[in-house]
Amino acid sequence: MPLDPVLARIDSDLPQAISRLQELLRIPSISTDPAYKGDCDTAADWLVADLNSIGFRAEKRPTPGHPMVVAHGDGPGPHIMFYGHYDVQPVDPLVLWTHDPFDPVIEDTAKGPVIRARGASDDKGQLMTFIEACRAWKSQHGTLPAHISFFLEGEEESGSPSLIPFMRAHADELRSDIALICDTGLFADKTPSIVTMLRGLVGEQITITGPSKDLHSGMYGGAAMNPIRVLSRIIAALHDDQGRVTVPGFYDGVPELPPEVAAQWQALNFDHKGFLGAVGLSDLAGEQGRSALEMLWSRPTCEVNGIWGGYTGDGFKTVLPSQAHAKISFRLVGQQDPAAIRTNFRAFVRAMLPPDCTVEFHEHGASPAGQMSIDNPAFEAARAALSDEWGVPAAYVGCGGSIPIAGYFKDILGVDAMLIGFAKDDDAIHSPNEKYDVESFHKGIRSWARILAALT
Amino acid sequence: MPLDPVLARIDSDLPQAISRLQELLRIPSISTDPAYKGDCDTAADWLVADLNSIGFRAEKRPTPGHPMVVAHGDGPGPHIMFYGHYDVQPVDPLVLWTHDPFDPVIEDTAKGPVIRARGASDDKGQLMTFIEACRAWKSQHGTLPAHISFFLEGEEESGSPSLIPFMRAHADELRSDIALICDTGLFADKTPSIVTMLRGLVGEQITITGPSKDLHSGMYGGAAMNPIRVLSRIIAALHDDQGRVTVPGFYDGVPELPPEVAAQWQALNFDHKGFLGAVGLSDLAGEQGRSALEMLWSRPTCEVNGIWGGYTGDGFKTVLPSQAHAKISFRLVGQQDPAAIRTNFRAFVRAMLPPDCTVEFHEHGASPAGQMSIDNPAFEAARAALSDEWGVPAAYVGCGGSIPIAGYFKDILGVDAMLIGFAKDDDAIHSPNEKYDVESFHKGIRSWARILAALT
Repeated sequence: MPLDPVLARIDSDLPQAISRLQELLRIPSISTDPAYKGDCDTAADWLVADLNSIGFRAEKRPTPGHPMVVAHGDGPGPHIMFYGHYDVQPVDPLVLWTHDPFDPVIEDTAKGPVIRARGASDDKGQLMTFIEACRAWKSQHGTLPAHISFFLEGEEESGSPSLIPFMRAHADELRSDIALICDTGLFADKTPSIVTMLRGLVGEQITITGPSKDLHSGMYGGAAMNPIRVLSRIIAALHDDQGRVTVPGFYDGVPELPPEVAAQWQALNFDHKGFLGAVGLSDLAGEQGRSALEMLWSRPTCEVNGIWGGYTGDGFKTVLPSQAHAKISFRLVGQQDPAAIRTNFRAFVRAMLPPDCTVEFHEHGASPAGQMSIDNPAFEAARAALSDEWGVPAAYVGCGGSIPIAGYFKDILGVDAMLIGFAKDDDAIHSPNEKYDVESFHKGIRSWARILAALT
Repeated sequence: MPLDPVLARIDSDLPQAISRLQELLRIPSISTDPAYKGDCDTAADWLVADLNSIGFRAEKRPTPGHPMVVAHGDGPGPHIMFYGHYDVQPVDPLVLWTHDPFDPVIEDTAKGPVIRARGASDDKGQLMTFIEACRAWKSQHGTLPAHISFFLEGEEESGSPSLIPFMRAHADELRSDIALICDTGLFADKTPSIVTMLRGLVGEQITITGPSKDLHSGMYGGAAMNPIRVLSRIIAALHDDQGRVTVPGFYDGVPELPPEVAAQWQALNFDHKGFLGAVGLSDLAGEQGRSALEMLWSRPTCEVNGIWGGYTGDGFKTVLPSQAHAKISFRLVGQQDPAAIRTNFRAFVRAMLPPDCTVEFHEHGASPAGQMSIDNPAFEAARAALSDEWGVPAAYVGCGGSIPIAGYFKDILGVDAMLIGFAKDDDAIHSPNEKYDVESFHKGIRSWARILAALT
């Protein structure tokens, strides 16, 4: 089935596609706020109706929270599953919005026209790129290019409590040859990319106790152990002067970057000065001898996310506190074992405790790193299709954060997932005045049409 | 004028003396709470009346806050000034008191009878020891043994805002040959002592800023500098592995203990295991090779009194914070210069900053250490008198905290001050169920009678 008429149809249908997206954006489907429960339901209904209108067998499926939308469409090729989410972030603080977040407008900006509304980029605009690609294909060829399914969630912005149970309960229905996830962005606003590495996470909270109660620093200072000093010594010792994490065994399972990926990343010419400059920094603070993209994507980290102890109010209080606390997290890569890292970290802390101090640990989650199987030929096929559409070579990139859905497809269903998205760095997702570039939307739809052609 | 009839009178008059103290304790003179302003006034009036009744010329003197009580009594010897304070701490939490804090009762305990009430020890019971000594002297000899003055404050528990201006404005009236201050305790509950060293204090608050805003630790972690790491490294570097403070020049002006004082302290057989054991500790955490009393009294310290930064609430947030903060204080001894220590500390911090971080400093007070001139023969005379009363050699001791009034007498009036008191470690000052041992009160009065005899 030829691609060109599909692309032409996408171009000519763009105004109608934008209009459909605006309809969906008008539904305030904020999943975290119970006041909007009915709106989440309405958004699911809208998607069911729209998918049914282009020949899918779409259904709203109940969960203990907001419903899932599951749809199946027949076609000749492989079974392709698409994941997105129809719920959106809250809009506070509303005063910072230049107009009603649920009254989507098309705005001309210096960088081109944008669709401005809550959810325009995250994730309604992105999920509609795939629906519109299917619609154009169907309209030109009367059928889909493959057996295509949709799996749309309404709880992504509130921790996805129903996701794993639902995937487990419907594993046979959801299993497919490949999964496509549209919830990421372009690299540096211009280079199409496929996320192939996601860092994992281990979170720990530690409490060091010295004296059994807060003491007067005049009466006891000098003789009594101060737990803030102990905690600071431990945190200071977590990195060596080369920026490497010193927890024993920490780098077990950390792979070196394959030369071809390293070359690709090199070719991206990442502007780390600009990246850091935007937040008031200039120097790379990670492991010496590593590139910025390695620090962000392929190297593990240890960060202190919070610290507190003693008197923290206005003025001064000469207290020698009983306790000091910190929240510490590790980003993991490759085959690093979250359980081993937690165990080794705790042993590291205990070994640094003076005799008079005790430590308590509290666990805050653990997930291994995700690594996509780019040996699956779908990856190279999609990469070529993206390169064709955007006119620059598409890149395999990493993601410093965690997008658990990709791991769930692999672990629960045994399905490789490709994370492809068209958001830009300045889309202000989760912030006031969220937007999605019309270019992202238009070329996003065209990208999926090309990828469908390439995969079938 | 012979001492023995005065001591006998003190013994026989003890029930009446306790009754007078109870009257004063019934007045809830809480200086920090505006609701008790009238009661502070009433306490001052009570003292004026009591002092007038034994022949002093006593007056209530207004200040912008609570009034001072100033009294003068004629006598043949030197001019002796006595300082105490009639205001008391708040009583919260009231539920922890076994009875009304302003209904003083005499309670029998395993360690002997006690007077239990707010202010019983701090400082109404202590200041009444001196008034009762004067009363007994006057009753037996018809006159005082010296020119004795009182200077009683009502704002000690609320930062003494009127003290320095009042001392400056009335310097000629308050200037004397020696000042006596009764607001300290016995050493280890049994050894009478004169405080001859008070540590000074320098307080600093520091704020380290890295990124210009809080960042997502997944998106930036590894490449962006975390200010909590920087702050922890600075705090960890403030002490070497011998427990010494590493700020350059920190030990300038820190004297070694004179051998005779060292020998006296040695003879005190301080039970540091018991001292630390009471607060759940066992090991001396200060400079290696120093005794516990040196660590507490004659060596300078650096303590972190508070630390905070990043996310400190429940659960976990993967933030890489923009700022980290700490409150840090130094206790000073000998001739250490507060201004030089602040300057050197700030330079030390700046030298440890990575290029991308900035620091702001906020000053929280500075006072030099106090060192009494024990060459003044009044000290040895008072020490002998105390030894006679308590049956064990009285000691020159240090005080880890700061009692600014002693320094003010020296700096503003040029008068040496002797800090002598009879409180015990378990008096629960500033806490619920404050008490003063009847033994402290009785032998305290006798101690002052002996000291007056020795000084005249």
